[in-house]
Amino acid sequence: MTLQKQQSESSLDQNGRLLSRQIIDAGKIFFDKNWVLGTSGNFSAVVSREPLRLLITASGKNKGELGSDDFVIVDEQGKPVDPSMAKPSAETMLHVVLAKEAGAGSILHTHSVYSTILSKRFFGEDHLSISDLEMLKGLSGITTHDTRVKIKIFANTQDMNELADQLAKMIAHNDESVKHAFLICGHGLYTWGKDVAEARRHIEILEFLFEVIHKSDLYTSS
Amino acid sequence: MTLQKQQSESSLDQNGRLLSRQIIDAGKIFFDKNWVLGTSGNFSAVVSREPLRLLITASGKNKGELGSDDFVIVDEQGKPVDPSMAKPSAETMLHVVLAKEAGAGSILHTHSVYSTILSKRFFGEDHLSISDLEMLKGLSGITTHDTRVKIKIFANTQDMNELADQLAKMIAHNDESVKHAFLICGHGLYTWGKDVAEARRHIEILEFLFEVIHKSDLYTSS
Amino acid sequence: MTLQKQQSESSLDQNGRLLSRQIIDAGKIFFDKNWVLGTSGNFSAVVSREPLRLLITASGKNKGELGSDDFVIVDEQGKPVDPSMAKPSAETMLHVVLAKEAGAGSILHTHSVYSTILSKRFFGEDHLSISDLEMLKGLSGITTHDTRVKIKIFANTQDMNELADQLAKMIAHNDESVKHAFLICGHGLYTWGKDVAEARRHIEILEFLFEVIHKSDLYTSS
Amino acid sequence: MTLQKQQSESSLDQNGRLLSRQIIDAGKIFFDKNWVLGTSGNFSAVVSREPLRLLITASGKNKGELGSDDFVIVDEQGKPVDPSMAKPSAETMLHVVLAKEAGAGSILHTHSVYSTILSKRFFGEDHLSISDLEMLKGLSGITTHDTRVKIKIFANTQDMNELADQLAKMIAHNDESVKHAFLICGHGLYTWGKDVAEARRHIEILEFLFEVIHKSDLYTSS
Repeated sequence: MTLQKQQSESSLDQNGRLLSRQIIDAGKIFFDKNWVLGTSGNFSAVVSREPLRLLITASGKNKGELGSDDFVIVDEQGKPVDPSMAKPSAETMLHVVLAKEAGAGSILHTHSVYSTILSKRFFGEDHLSISDLEMLKGLSGITTHDTRVKIKIFANTQDMNELADQLAKMIAHNDESVKHAFLICGHGLYTWGKDVAEARRHIEILEFLFEVIHKSDLYTSS
Repeated sequence: MTLQKQQSESSLDQNGRLLSRQIIDAGKIFFDKNWVLGTSGNFSAVVSREPLRLLITASGKNKGELGSDDFVIVDEQGKPVDPSMAKPSAETMLHVVLAKEAGAGSILHTHSVYSTILSKRFFGEDHLSISDLEMLKGLSGITTHDTRVKIKIFANTQDMNELADQLAKMIAHNDESVKHAFLICGHGLYTWGKDVAEARRHIEILEFLFEVIHKSDLYTSS
Repeated sequence: MTLQKQQSESSLDQNGRLLSRQIIDAGKIFFDKNWVLGTSGNFSAVVSREPLRLLITASGKNKGELGSDDFVIVDEQGKPVDPSMAKPSAETMLHVVLAKEAGAGSILHTHSVYSTILSKRFFGEDHLSISDLEMLKGLSGITTHDTRVKIKIFANTQDMNELADQLAKMIAHNDESVKHAFLICGHGLYTWGKDVAEARRHIEILEFLFEVIHKSDLYTSS
Repeated sequence: MTLQKQQSESSLDQNGRLLSRQIIDAGKIFFDKNWVLGTSGNFSAVVSREPLRLLITASGKNKGELGSDDFVIVDEQGKPVDPSMAKPSAETMLHVVLAKEAGAGSILHTHSVYSTILSKRFFGEDHLSISDLEMLKGLSGITTHDTRVKIKIFANTQDMNELADQLAKMIAHNDESVKHAFLICGHGLYTWGKDVAEARRHIEILEFLFEVIHKSDLYTSS
């Protein structure tokens, strides 16, 4: 424990420590709001671009009580750069693809009640479509409520590398349904941003919109 | 950052610092209750009447983690009195109109799930009408539950100055539907009071009433 | 302010300070759970029996941020024993009647979403009847879930002294619908106990039961 | 009080103090999330296997404000090992059976709104069946969402020793509906794990799943 602590702390430079603290703070808030119960969810931030290094939460940690030891640094294959580090999440390649292909600086994944319910309810329509709500303006690049945002709903799978490949292709084709976020059916929400603050804002905005849609009849089909 | 901090701190006198602390405290509570997720909402308080100076939250700040630097002082045209200050919210003129025309000492704007849903549901009826609930007595000037309070629902717009003009005219005509608060459709709630404490009480009262109305069949048409 | 503080502190003996601290702690929890938003609710505890002296929250205070100055001591007519004290709540006589006639050591009154909704929904049936739920055993004197608890629903009024008289008569006749608690229609919940801890437990139990009844079809008519 | 404190502290060795602190922390979180209101619920952890000694919350304590004195150590008959200790919960034998027969290292029992409602709604079907949700993977031994977990619903009773016998028999027969958790109708949830962290994760996972099932149409009959 002491040894592992030394290794992980020495592996985080000043930038990494700052990013880990921002993620730790986001995790406390998300746990408090019931978006990452039971060790669910995973969070990451880009530490360096060349070569790509991603700071990501280790598998199986309580996201409301993260410590500076609960992170792994992975490379662009999603492998820990230091073999002594904890195991990264099975979903690491989704984070790597978003950092590489979508240019994300931070990726946040939550498991909330409303994202779970909506992902099931709209799975047959391929994506969730949200329009005419002021809170949409909280998503990067959206400047008016008078717009329509599409959020892809993928089938759930235990082969996350295959899903990562599919996601990479959609981003390469500029598919508008993976521009801001996506859902995995019965599983949860992925969103991202240029930094942790923007990614966290996107989580808050989307969770708000999901609750509004679930509790009202505001859904407009695409 | 240090420079900006010096400027903003020197621009706040003792009264301004007191008001900013009251708003910071209200912001923490509103964020905790999910009324200002994702940097939504904006808050203001009158610093001086002659000339009118309004302390208002800068654009794009997390309302649960406001600091003393996250405010701008604007004049009666809604322009920052110090050009080095951060950008005020696009909705600043709504605050100015309420301070000038309605005599408000503090104006608070939130984006909650229930205000969003009710603003959509009752938009076609022009306003939301609430009656026969004890909590109405928490609104300034209401002394019995046996009353009816009307809350105007405006169409949403990205031209907030035009909405501010419309609001000013309604206040000038003593329109009873903008006496305590108003909603913007798909957007959120504005309410105000003689000081931050009263405006905050109005937010809490109205958010409570909106949740009661949404979850029950208590709506009575006007 | 300093003068008032001196007076109210000097008027509280050690027992009064202990009771006020227990009520302050309960108020924080109730506010956090949205049961006393917007300065609603009022709380009391018996300081002495002979003569009857009741410590009660002053009118118009935020119940989540009570301080030791936010209390009044009233006599058995509900009048402040010290004329310099703050104004007690208009509902003070309900507390006095419960302390005198029901032997309560502490009385707590909250305004929650579910108590408001259920008080409207079941007003026509005179009372709310709850049965066959384990949580009923949290009410004083209930030792099995296989029971039925009746909770009187009074019409709301602005003449609380008249309501207090009606309540006193029902208690004198051992009416089982005012044994543990009562509701006021569109207004909120009153419950009580031998001390602040028991009264607070009753609030928590009843708020839980109200939410269960509202969200399910568990209501059984009397 | 001082005497009792001395006794209970001296009766907890280092391991017992560590376990009690983990349970105290879990209790604060569960209370905050409204899963153990009004002194409901009880929590335990195995202190030693040979002989079996179980640290369990004393009866009637507020589970959000547990102190190190609010625990009892019981033997495999559910009796306090020190007669001066506080009274253990009437449900102690359920904990003992789970520690002995299911090999649990910690047992946590909560009373939430959704577990109460679902236990009533699905009581006629003998158990609740949950499938095709990613969060199921948070339950020990579940490695894919593509599975079905059965949760037994027992009738409520005031004879908990009889229920403990019934439970012991089902565990002895490897009944799959008591592998991870069970519900008692109108009462609440029991779940367990190899240690307090795992049992707490199971509570969070199951409460999440119950809320999803209640709020959606995701129920699939067995």
